Amino acid sequence: MGRRSIHTQEELRELIIAATTSIIDEAGIDGLSAREIAKHIGYSPGTLYNMFENLDDLLLIIEARLLDDLRQQLIEAAQNAPAHERLPRLAATYFEFTQNHPKRWSLLIEHRIPGNHPVPDWYEDKISSLLQPFEDVLDPILDADTSPETRRQHARTIWAGIHGLTSLSTANKLATITNHSGQVLIDDLVMTYLAGLQRSTSHGVSTAPQKEKR
Amino acid sequence: MGRRSIHTQEELRELIIAATTSIIDEAGIDGLSAREIAKHIGYSPGTLYNMFENLDDLLLIIEARLLDDLRQQLIEAAQNAPAHERLPRLAATYFEFTQNHPKRWSLLIEHRIPGNHPVPDWYEDKISSLLQPFEDVLDPILDADTSPETRRQHARTIWAGIHGLTSLSTANKLATITNHSGQVLIDDLVMTYLAGLQRSTSHGVSTAPQKEKR
Repeated sequence: MGRRSIHTQEELRELIIAATTSIIDEAGIDGLSAREIAKHIGYSPGTLYNMFENLDDLLLIIEARLLDDLRQQLIEAAQNAPAHERLPRLAATYFEFTQNHPKRWSLLIEHRIPGNHPVPDWYEDKISSLLQPFEDVLDPILDADTSPETRRQHARTIWAGIHGLTSLSTANKLATITNHSGQVLIDDLVMTYLAGLQRSTSHGVSTAPQKEKR
Repeated sequence: MGRRSIHTQEELRELIIAATTSIIDEAGIDGLSAREIAKHIGYSPGTLYNMFENLDDLLLIIEARLLDDLRQQLIEAAQNAPAHERLPRLAATYFEFTQNHPKRWSLLIEHRIPGNHPVPDWYEDKISSLLQPFEDVLDPILDADTSPETRRQHARTIWAGIHGLTSLSTANKLATITNHSGQVLIDDLVMTYLAGLQRSTSHGVSTAPQKEKR
């Protein structure tokens, strides 16, 4: 098919991103090709390669938008909630989001840039930005004299636990091992971890006043 | 290459499994083919298909052996350790094992049987059997009147957290988000979760004597 000129470059770019997103949501990335995407929008595969260096670049943009959406939902979920409910809400939101976009989430988990090319810095920044909401919700729960480094560590630990559990669920691997729903296990993980944090701050050497404990 | 007859069927089967395992440990499964495996052992690809229905069957056997090895190491790690150290030891062993076999572990995580074929029952059983050591180590830590169902749930939660964190690490995805080692985050997860379990049992409605608390 020849190139049509009814779209601006920017419109064309968005068309390509939207078509690819909907193909992935339908069928995953197995067998995804520039040809198939081009066919969807009525352009030639060459048009794609004028806009994107390769398929991996296009996929990274779709992943980045997914991360942006998730981050926004996390921030909203934590807003206006009492301090001790924020982490459970973040976890539930994270889980629900991934279950609502299982194929795109699997893309994010499974997509590897071939040939050991590093992922771009902006992509790493987006992944890292997911952690900020977790640090923020831990802040009022931990003792006032908890070091920023310890808070960072706890945020990464609980994020990794939630993320790992979530990914098992979107990959349909949780059902192999248990009849518990992912949501039940996430709740257990978060509530028990929180109880453990409160126990260690109240039993630890800290003499700072305890904040916002249940 | 023609078929040689210097090996028994059983020897040939083990040769194929060993060659495939070493190819995966070296290079992962990208581009793995019956032709390449056959070349390694000096037989024709047809020989492979006489022994295994397809490449997926062969891969499942390699995954099953990896699971058997891990289970054995978990059982040994928990033996002879004081009750409150068993879960941290299980977690550290799980993590170390996966880091020692990163490519085969990624196979286990990423391998999907095409065409929505269900995995065989024996394979699901092997995955499930990994959970037993986690249930066993929780037993002396939880209140005596903890229901078997609750114990099962906690075992699955902490297993899923450890498994998820471990898989992030073998996929080199942890480094994107943190400079903490996987081992540090696993320790944090397990120790805080344990503290939370002890807090909830000592603060809960249970009146049963607490066992083996630190």
